[in-house]
Amino acid sequence: MGRWEPNARERLVRAAVDLFAEQGYDATTVNEIAERAGGLTKTTFFRHFRDKREVLFAGQEIHSRLLSDAIAAAPDSATPLQAVAAALDALTATFSGDRRDFSARLRAVIADNSELQERAMFKRAVLAEAMTDALRKRGVPDAAASLAAELGVRAFYSAFGDWTDPANQQTLADVARQTLKELRAAIATLG
Amino acid sequence: MGRWEPNARERLVRAAVDLFAEQGYDATTVNEIAERAGGLTKTTFFRHFRDKREVLFAGQEIHSRLLSDAIAAAPDSATPLQAVAAALDALTATFSGDRRDFSARLRAVIADNSELQERAMFKRAVLAEAMTDALRKRGVPDAAASLAAELGVRAFYSAFGDWTDPANQQTLADVARQTLKELRAAIATLG
Repeated sequence: MGRWEPNARERLVRAAVDLFAEQGYDATTVNEIAERAGGLTKTTFFRHFRDKREVLFAGQEIHSRLLSDAIAAAPDSATPLQAVAAALDALTATFSGDRRDFSARLRAVIADNSELQERAMFKRAVLAEAMTDALRKRGVPDAAASLAAELGVRAFYSAFGDWTDPANQQTLADVARQTLKELRAAIATLG
Repeated sequence: MGRWEPNARERLVRAAVDLFAEQGYDATTVNEIAERAGGLTKTTFFRHFRDKREVLFAGQEIHSRLLSDAIAAAPDSATPLQAVAAALDALTATFSGDRRDFSARLRAVIADNSELQERAMFKRAVLAEAMTDALRKRGVPDAAASLAAELGVRAFYSAFGDWTDPANQQTLADVARQTLKELRAAIATLG
């Protein structure tokens, strides 16, 4: 077997989520994941991921970069929340409709395990930090940058939860835009 | 040695923070903490705390309760943020000036260890959840309740960080009130 496996990373992620959903996270080994991913090896797995847990958070780096790049690219005239909305558009555009089922399974696996929930909380913090930094670089003061980023991750995760419901017919982009709008409206009621 | 030790809990917390600050969290044993707390035993320690880590988060339950009780007790006419401000007043009132040095050491110990930081993030989430629930019980809609609670914990932790600076001369209550005011002002700039 050669060192180069086409789409190995993506295949490993899919195999891991399938196995975790079927037989549980704790019961699944790296060997089984590699095998299920179309006969890959443990060595290939560890070329892509540090451990079994990280396979579930494979998107962290690229998601962070999508968010910060979009904020950097927003027009100078954009308000902090308009820049955050652009960031959410960039991120949610990568979640096509055929990822809905997979995302639902991923979400259920994480919800079922407190170690994974802690790790997910950390990813959330990383995404928020990426947006906060990007907003600061636009000259947004610290408190406002951090609050706008918080609203952004809140809108994203809430929308992601709604979108993974099989009954949902909208795109993730639309759900996220709507959720961000609702958060802005809620802010106005805080007094 | 009798089963009842006056102020054992408080003495154990102080001893633990002192030892962690002096010789590191990992290097300190439960036996050493009990000993330093004026000759207490390991058994006494475990009557109060599940493990070495939990001694640093001893305030979680009482802090949650202070916050939710104050929100429940706020006048019917209070806005969500006014109720949160009352909650912060109740919580910060328990941090007298003579706890500043201790709090600074506690903060440094946590900042130095990623496991403790994760645990601290969990406590933050518990406090936010306590305020969110208490606000919901007042009839505040979910999104607004959760946002108001987030602003509250943000103000508290930011103020706590500023207050533990030895150069700071204000009470924690004053710093927290000021911080919450600044967060409200920042919200108005998000666009």
